[in-house]
Amino acid sequence: MSPTKYIPALDWLRRYRRADLPGDVIASVIVTIMLIPQSLAYALLANLPPEVGLYASITPLIAYALFGSSRALAVGPVAVVSLMTASAIGGIAAPGTPEHWAAALLLALISGLFLLVLGVARLGFLANLLSHPVISGFISASAILIAASQVKHILGIRISGERLHEILLQIAEQIGAVNWITGLIGVASLAFLFWVRSSLAPTLQRLGLSKGAADLAARAGPVAAVLAATVSVAMLRFDQGAGVKIVGAIPAGLPPLTLPSLDPQLWVDLIPAAVLIAIVGFVESVSVAQSLAAKRRQKIDPDQELVGLGAANIAAALTGGYPVTGGFARSVVNFAAGANTQLAAMLTAILIAVATVFLTPLFFYMPEAVLAATIIVAVLGLVDVKTLRHAWHYSKADAVSLIATAAMVLLFGVETGIMVGVGVSIGLYLWRTSRPHVAIVGQVPGTEHYRNVLRHSVITKPGILALRVDESLYFINARYLEDKVAALVAEQPQVRHFVLICSAINFIDASALESLETIGRNLSDAGVKLHLTEVKGPVMDRLRKVGFTEYLTGEVFLSTHQAFQVLSAGTSEERSAQRANL
Amino acid sequence: MSPTKYIPALDWLRRYRRADLPGDVIASVIVTIMLIPQSLAYALLANLPPEVGLYASITPLIAYALFGSSRALAVGPVAVVSLMTASAIGGIAAPGTPEHWAAALLLALISGLFLLVLGVARLGFLANLLSHPVISGFISASAILIAASQVKHILGIRISGERLHEILLQIAEQIGAVNWITGLIGVASLAFLFWVRSSLAPTLQRLGLSKGAADLAARAGPVAAVLAATVSVAMLRFDQGAGVKIVGAIPAGLPPLTLPSLDPQLWVDLIPAAVLIAIVGFVESVSVAQSLAAKRRQKIDPDQELVGLGAANIAAALTGGYPVTGGFARSVVNFAAGANTQLAAMLTAILIAVATVFLTPLFFYMPEAVLAATIIVAVLGLVDVKTLRHAWHYSKADAVSLIATAAMVLLFGVETGIMVGVGVSIGLYLWRTSRPHVAIVGQVPGTEHYRNVLRHSVITKPGILALRVDESLYFINARYLEDKVAALVAEQPQVRHFVLICSAINFIDASALESLETIGRNLSDAGVKLHLTEVKGPVMDRLRKVGFTEYLTGEVFLSTHQAFQVLSAGTSEERSAQRANL
Repeated sequence: MSPTKYIPALDWLRRYRRADLPGDVIASVIVTIMLIPQSLAYALLANLPPEVGLYASITPLIAYALFGSSRALAVGPVAVVSLMTASAIGGIAAPGTPEHWAAALLLALISGLFLLVLGVARLGFLANLLSHPVISGFISASAILIAASQVKHILGIRISGERLHEILLQIAEQIGAVNWITGLIGVASLAFLFWVRSSLAPTLQRLGLSKGAADLAARAGPVAAVLAATVSVAMLRFDQGAGVKIVGAIPAGLPPLTLPSLDPQLWVDLIPAAVLIAIVGFVESVSVAQSLAAKRRQKIDPDQELVGLGAANIAAALTGGYPVTGGFARSVVNFAAGANTQLAAMLTAILIAVATVFLTPLFFYMPEAVLAATIIVAVLGLVDVKTLRHAWHYSKADAVSLIATAAMVLLFGVETGIMVGVGVSIGLYLWRTSRPHVAIVGQVPGTEHYRNVLRHSVITKPGILALRVDESLYFINARYLEDKVAALVAEQPQVRHFVLICSAINFIDASALESLETIGRNLSDAGVKLHLTEVKGPVMDRLRKVGFTEYLTGEVFLSTHQAFQVLSAGTSEERSAQRANL
Repeated sequence: MSPTKYIPALDWLRRYRRADLPGDVIASVIVTIMLIPQSLAYALLANLPPEVGLYASITPLIAYALFGSSRALAVGPVAVVSLMTASAIGGIAAPGTPEHWAAALLLALISGLFLLVLGVARLGFLANLLSHPVISGFISASAILIAASQVKHILGIRISGERLHEILLQIAEQIGAVNWITGLIGVASLAFLFWVRSSLAPTLQRLGLSKGAADLAARAGPVAAVLAATVSVAMLRFDQGAGVKIVGAIPAGLPPLTLPSLDPQLWVDLIPAAVLIAIVGFVESVSVAQSLAAKRRQKIDPDQELVGLGAANIAAALTGGYPVTGGFARSVVNFAAGANTQLAAMLTAILIAVATVFLTPLFFYMPEAVLAATIIVAVLGLVDVKTLRHAWHYSKADAVSLIATAAMVLLFGVETGIMVGVGVSIGLYLWRTSRPHVAIVGQVPGTEHYRNVLRHSVITKPGILALRVDESLYFINARYLEDKVAALVAEQPQVRHFVLICSAINFIDASALESLETIGRNLSDAGVKLHLTEVKGPVMDRLRKVGFTEYLTGEVFLSTHQAFQVLSAGTSEERSAQRANL
C-alpha cells in the first residue's frame, strides 16, 4: 500500500525527466492562452462573475495534477457543467448576489466530496449507468441549449428561461430590441470563428505549415477574435453610447479562500444537481483521458480519476471557483502541444494565477458578444448526428434512449434529461429481457448439435419438446416463461417430456425459481415431465442448495443430446410397455 | 373479434347450466355474511365512513362479474388497499370531511382508468416489476402496519401517524388513557378470534364435522364475534357512559351516484398513489385468481383481469365507494362454498344492496373494537416469514430486496416502501449483470467440449486465450469487459489470438458494440487478433448489418472447437514460418 497508489504525483515527480520539460512548458503556455477567454466565457454561461472562471482554472488544476492519473487532461470550467451549474444555482438565488456565488461554491464542494467518496469506495462503475446513446443525446442537446442561451449575448438582448422553446420564444419576441453594434461584433466573431474552424488549417497547410502546426494555429482562432474585438471596443468606446456589454472591472489578485456554506437546507437542495454534475463531469472527463492515454499506450485508472476530479472540485470550492472537470478541446490542445506530464497543468495554473494578478485590466473592454461567439462555435462541434444515425441503424432501443434524452434536455432541462435518459435506457433493457428469445430445437442430422427448428432443418422426436431460453430467468420475465411453456404444451398434446435447455441461463432468482416450480407442477398435472439440460455450474449449485432437484419431476442432463437419447429410449420403452399391456 | 373476448360475461351467461345454480347461491349467502363486517372494518381502516365500505361491495362486484375472467374471485375492500387509501387521502383532507371522501372516489377512478388502459393496451406484464420477494416484504410489513394501526380501536385511544415507530410511540404515551370497557371487548374478541383460527376447525372435526364444513364454520368466527359484541353493547349501552365507540347510524338506502372531482391539481396529487394502488391491487388479485383457477384447471387472462378490476374501481368511484380489488380470504371462501361462476358475485352484490337498504339499523351498536380485532387477526395471517427464510437461503440479493421493502414500508409508509423495493430489486439485478461471470475455457480431453479451466482439467493451447462471457453485453457491463480483457491479455504476453465465446450473449447493445470495437483496436495494437465463436443468429444478424465483421481483426467461428483447430494450426504455421525465417 504505497502512497503513490493514492497520490500519483509522488510517482511521476520522482521519475521526472529533464527531456519532458520543454514539452510541458510549451503546452502550458498554449493552454493558458486558450484557457483565459474560455474561463471568462464559461463563467458567463454559468451566470457567474468573470473572475470565478479564472479562479476555477488555478487550484483545481494543481489538485488534479497531484491526484489524477491522466497526464494530458486539462481540467477547468467546461460548457456542459457550466450550463448545469447555471440551472442548479439559478433556482437558489438571483445571479449577481453573494448567495448565488455561495451556491456555486457549495455545488463544487458537494460534487467534489461525492466524486472522492466514489473513488475511495472504488465505485467508478456507477458511471456505466450512462450508456453511450444517453451521453451522446445529452451532449448534443446540451450543446444546442448552450448555443441558444448565448444568442442573447450575441444580439445584446435580455432573456431568462432555461428551456429551448422558452429561449427561442423570447428571442423572437425581442428581435426588435437587438443592439446592433453588439450584434455586429457577435455575428462577425461567429463568421470569423466558423471560417477558422472550417478553412484555416487547410489554408495554412497549403501555405506550407505542417499539419500539427496548422491545427494548433487554428485552435488559436478564438484568442485572435477575442483580441480583435476587445481592441475595437476599447478604441471606439462602444461600451459607452452604443451600450455594448463588456466584461468590465475584474478584481485583481489571487483567488480568495472561501468556506462553502454549512446550511443543511442548501445542502439538501443542491445534492441532486451536484451528484448529476459529478457523474456527467466524470464521464466526459474519463472518456477524454482514456482516448488520449490510449494514443500513447498509457493507462488511466477510473477510480483514481474520481479522486483527482474530486480533489479538483473541492479545491474549486475552497478558492472561489465553481464545478470543474476535464475539457475535451483543451485536453487535446495540451496533448498536441506536447504535454508529457501533469507538470504542464501545474505550470498552466501558475500562469493563470499570474494573469489574475497582473492582466485583469486587459480584459476590461472584452465584449460579452465575442465570448458568447467562442462558446457557440465550440459547442456546436459537440452536436453529434453520427451516433444517432448509427444507433438507429443498429438498434432502435438505443436510438430511442438517445432521442428521449435529447428531447427531455431541450424541453425540460439538463437534469430531467439525464435522469429520463438513464430511466429509459434501463427500462428498455428490462423490456428486452422481459420477453426472452426462446427457440424450440431439434438435432442437426449426423451431429450432436441442437438448433432452432425455425432456422435450421433439424430432426425432432414426437413426445419430446426441447426449448432453449436465451436469457437469465428473473422476476421480470418469470411469468412470461410460465405463459410460454403453458401455451407450447397446450398446442402439442402428444408431448410427454419437456426439456428446458439452460445454456444461456446465467442465473435464476427467487421469483423465477418459484415460476420453475409452478411450471413443473402444471406440467406434471398435464402428465408431462420437466427436464433440465446444460445447467451452468453456479446455477446448479444454487438449485441443489434449496433441493429443487428433489421436486423436479424429470431429470437433469448434461447435454441436450444426452436428454434426447435417454428420453427417446424411455418413450419407446413406455410405448412397448403400453403395447405389452394391450 | 367477438364481444365475448372483452366481456366474458356474455360467454358464461349464455352457457350457464342449471346445475351451477345451487353452488352459486350458497356461496353468495356465505360471502355476504362474511363481507358485511369486513366492509365496515376496512372502511374504518381507510378512515372512511362505514357505509363507504358497503357501497364498495355492491356495484364493483357486478362490474367485475361482467368483465373479469376469474370465476371465483371475490372483489371488494381489502386490507392493504384500504391502508394505502388511508395514506393517500390522509394528506389531502381531514377524515370525516366531504373532501376526504371525494379524494377516495377520485383515487378509485384514477386506479380504475389506469387498470383499464393497461388492460386494453395489454400491458399487464408491468406487474412483473414487483418481484416475489418485494411483494412478500410489502405484504408482511403492511400487515404489521395495519395491525398496529388498529390497536387504537382495541384500546379506545386516539393516535395519528402512519409509520410504525410513530404508532408504537403514541400507543406507549397514551397507555394511561385506555378505555377499559373498549379494551375488554377488543381483547376478548382478539382472544376468541385467535382461538377460532387455531383450534376451532380441528375441534369441530373431532366432533364429527367434515373438514370442509369445519373450515367454513371456522371462517364464520368473525361474524360470531361481531354479533356477540354488538349484542352486548346494545344490551348494556356501553356506548353511553362507558364511551365505547360504535359504528352508529348508517344512512339506509342504495349507494348514491357520485361524480369524482375534475380538479386538475387533485388529479396530479393522487395519480402516483392511484398507480401504486392499481398495481398492488392487481398483483394481489391476479395471484389469488390464478391459484384458484389452477385448482379447477381453468385459466384466467391477466390482461382481462386488468379490464375487470378497472371496471370494478370505476364502478366504485361512481357509486360512493373507494378502491377495491380481489380479496384472498373472501375468494377462498367463495370458492370453497361452491361458487361455480361469476353469478355468485352478482348475487352477493344484490344481497349486500338489500342489507344496505334494510339492515343498517342492526349495525348501529357494532363496536369499532371488534371490527379492529377482525382486521388484526386477518392481517397477521399475511405475515410471511417463510419466504424470507427461503430467499435468504437461496439468494442474498432477493433477501435484501425483501428486507429493504419491508423496512421502508414500516419506517416510511407503503408508497415509499414499494417504490424502494422495486428500485432495489432492479438495482440488484443490474449490479449482478454489471459484473458478468467469465470463464477461460479449455478442451475436455477427447471431446469437442470446452469448459472452465478452473472447474475442469482441460487442455489449453499456448498463444490462444478463449473467454466465455456469461451475460448479454450492454452499457452497464461493457466497460467491465474492456477492463477484463485488457487485464487478461496483459497477464499473458504470449497470447496471439483472443477468442470471445458468445454462447451466452443474447444481445449486444450500441454501447457494448463500441466497447467491442475498442477491445478489438486495443488487442490489435498489442498484436493480438480478436475472434468470435458461437455467435447467436439474431446477434450475428445485427453485427453484420453495421459491418462489424469488416473491422474485426480475426474471424467468426461456428464453434470453439473449430476456432481452436484453425487457430492452433495457424500458430504452428506462423511458428514454422518464423523458424524458416531464422
